[in-house]
Amino acid sequence: MAYFMGLDVGGTSVKGLIIDETGKIICEDSTPTLIGEELADCIISLADTLVRASGKVYSQIAGAGVCCPGVINPDDGSVVFAGNLELRDYPLRDILVKKLKIPVKVCNDANGAALGEAKFGAGKGYNDSVLVTLGTGVGGGIILGGKIFEGNKGAGAEVGHMVIEQGGAKCSCGRRGCFEAYCSARALTNRTKWAMEEDTGSDMWKTYTNDTADGRTPFEYMDSDRTARQVVDWYLKYLACGLTNLANIFRPEIIMIGGGVAAQGTRLTAPLQKLFDKELFGGSGYAPVKIECATLGNRAGAYGGAALLME
Amino acid sequence: MAYFMGLDVGGTSVKGLIIDETGKIICEDSTPTLIGEELADCIISLADTLVRASGKVYSQIAGAGVCCPGVINPDDGSVVFAGNLELRDYPLRDILVKKLKIPVKVCNDANGAALGEAKFGAGKGYNDSVLVTLGTGVGGGIILGGKIFEGNKGAGAEVGHMVIEQGGAKCSCGRRGCFEAYCSARALTNRTKWAMEEDTGSDMWKTYTNDTADGRTPFEYMDSDRTARQVVDWYLKYLACGLTNLANIFRPEIIMIGGGVAAQGTRLTAPLQKLFDKELFGGSGYAPVKIECATLGNRAGAYGGAALLME
Repeated sequence: MAYFMGLDVGGTSVKGLIIDETGKIICEDSTPTLIGEELADCIISLADTLVRASGKVYSQIAGAGVCCPGVINPDDGSVVFAGNLELRDYPLRDILVKKLKIPVKVCNDANGAALGEAKFGAGKGYNDSVLVTLGTGVGGGIILGGKIFEGNKGAGAEVGHMVIEQGGAKCSCGRRGCFEAYCSARALTNRTKWAMEEDTGSDMWKTYTNDTADGRTPFEYMDSDRTARQVVDWYLKYLACGLTNLANIFRPEIIMIGGGVAAQGTRLTAPLQKLFDKELFGGSGYAPVKIECATLGNRAGAYGGAALLME
Repeated sequence: MAYFMGLDVGGTSVKGLIIDETGKIICEDSTPTLIGEELADCIISLADTLVRASGKVYSQIAGAGVCCPGVINPDDGSVVFAGNLELRDYPLRDILVKKLKIPVKVCNDANGAALGEAKFGAGKGYNDSVLVTLGTGVGGGIILGGKIFEGNKGAGAEVGHMVIEQGGAKCSCGRRGCFEAYCSARALTNRTKWAMEEDTGSDMWKTYTNDTADGRTPFEYMDSDRTARQVVDWYLKYLACGLTNLANIFRPEIIMIGGGVAAQGTRLTAPLQKLFDKELFGGSGYAPVKIECATLGNRAGAYGGAALLME
């Protein structure tokens, strides 16, 4: 039996696990993320903890895969740029290989989560899948033939930064009208608050204020309140638009929805699939595309890291 | 020396050529396209003509690649559906293999043109490229690692059917706001005529009427006439938007522009590259993307057919 270590660097903590080749978790743990040059130190310390907890030694681990925010150079596993981690041209893979003395691979965190879901989550059994994460932003990853597709020098697969409304809402990337500017959890929250201001008679005011409402609020009231329903419909319209664009380009077998909004489950995916099937190029009879929620939650990245070594 | 046959099925004629492994044309010819079940007959007759003209015999030809409009099943080389050719579930590859007795591959015509340009045209020397054809519609193809990417069952790579203006102009595919609805030569012609109607003092009226104006008209007058300049700027804005979307997803090394509008050359690509570089995710310093015109003209498909056999 072979064992694989996966490590997922987040803004506040690094999550790690060791799995066997079937995906069974042998052990898992986490440690606070250290910013800047010390990032490798906290990863190495977590790796040591995991190996000890697994009852193995390093030579029994086939390798470690690290998912890290920012632009990662796929050729040398360096962090080209990661704003929140305060890193630029940081040779993460080389540092880790030197210390851990096992094979190490590094990939972008969104791409890693997509690989994790593709191998062990909602995408298991499919060759081609796309993960779209609806969180603070809209991120995701593209898996073609079981491998991460990330574009030249790892700079592609920015699925959230596709304009779907030319000249529209301002996006964090500097453009206007990006998929992210309409379909992030933040955009949904903003739309909800806007709708509540517009309709002070909405049932949404019964439980929430303009401070406490968020992207879950309209889903909670959609069956009883017209304004809440309109917010959900508005969101579904843009979400179907962006997902159809991705499907017309990649025509994957499945699109997986992750991030906070995916907690709505089939309340989100069932109406979304209907809108999507109507818009899909040539219809959904030939080469249909399923829309399903991701299943690995915040373990997706760590699974993906481990899966990097299985390629 | 190995020889390869490429055949490109168009609406009115099938173009064919035989090239050697360096891309040198040994001979080329064409024949009128036969619609429906007889399609294979005209292809076979052209193949015979080409082999005779080349001074070779079939056993000296490594294989034949056919580019055909419509949805092509990559697994069996059948034409799943091609409206203009009046074909559905037509086993094109099997028919050709039986008659020609050499290896045959079939691909979609837009994908084939992209492969031709990638191997022998503007994309020569690059691993990852995207061809965007600005003609009656907006088509194109995606080449990743030197191979056609076409999505599950060949139903992807529909680069023209990406919505860039939610709820916008009606598209031939049934959606609203597609890249094609703004950036096809037809859309440019319509915008030109609309602008001429709006400004009856425009210089464009000096040479053209509402019947004779087309997509070339605003480019012809852009340096002297404000209305013509506005039409060109409008077009460049949408074109840069669609190309940036594709680049943010694929981050290829080059985007090649084909079709009638590409005849404008650097009058099109120079201002386009400027707009594009400003919009590209993370800027154009890391992993830059060149925008250049395609170079093979209407031979791109036939070259691509031949290149199918070189993989």
